[in-house]
Amino acid sequence: MTAYDENNIFARILRGELPSARIFETDDVVAFMDVMPQSKGHCLVVPKAPSRNVLDASDATLSSLLPAVARLARAAKRAFDADGVTISQFNEAPAGQTVFHLHVHVIPRYEGEPLISHAGVMADPNLLAEQAARIRASLDQDGG
Amino acid sequence: MTAYDENNIFARILRGELPSARIFETDDVVAFMDVMPQSKGHCLVVPKAPSRNVLDASDATLSSLLPAVARLARAAKRAFDADGVTISQFNEAPAGQTVFHLHVHVIPRYEGEPLISHAGVMADPNLLAEQAARIRASLDQDGG
Repeated sequence: MTAYDENNIFARILRGELPSARIFETDDVVAFMDVMPQSKGHCLVVPKAPSRNVLDASDATLSSLLPAVARLARAAKRAFDADGVTISQFNEAPAGQTVFHLHVHVIPRYEGEPLISHAGVMADPNLLAEQAARIRASLDQDGG
Repeated sequence: MTAYDENNIFARILRGELPSARIFETDDVVAFMDVMPQSKGHCLVVPKAPSRNVLDASDATLSSLLPAVARLARAAKRAFDADGVTISQFNEAPAGQTVFHLHVHVIPRYEGEPLISHAGVMADPNLLAEQAARIRASLDQDGG
């Protein structure tokens, strides 16, 4: 497997070199909005520890990741009154991975609405910031 | 959210009331082949603790799940010489969930091969048992 590239987009976001619409941060992960959302409220959880994907991630990184994903999934579902949540995670390009720092997609789903294909066009940063604030407010409702 | 149903298919598999092509079992999870594979080697990790999906799962259940998923992903990738692995997990029917016991899909991916749609037809149990044995052997190679 190819080595971890310190200059991938998510590593640069984690270092604050690129902007993101942040939702929350813990000792282990950062959650922010996906810039090419496949549904309203599509967001990501990214571990701070460097790994390419689950194939090279440590058990410590993996253990802390899914509780954070679930917390974000619950908050995003509440924030947008979604009907479900699809969680996906891609390992290597043939599986759909495009940024080579481990990340998990949290995609709110709405009855009867198929996922939007990646358009290759970035969403309006102001809209993403507003959605991040909405999810953050929903997180705060029950502290969870 | 609807309550957990003790008689869902995975609960019955966990209780040994229905067969499955088992790959491994730990204190926390069972891994077995998906009976409607979307690619060669498509398998599942199912926590033993009852929960409907990540929206109602405990942090303890969630913490132990992803390390097991990664272990299975590495073994399945090796076993079938796959080019990548797609991991997906669905919460509620509008997100694609069909069995309402928390489970994670581990889907080996092959360069240039799109996922097979769920055909609604069960795979040959002998083939699944053979594939389970192949993944198990790959797990044993490095004890991981």
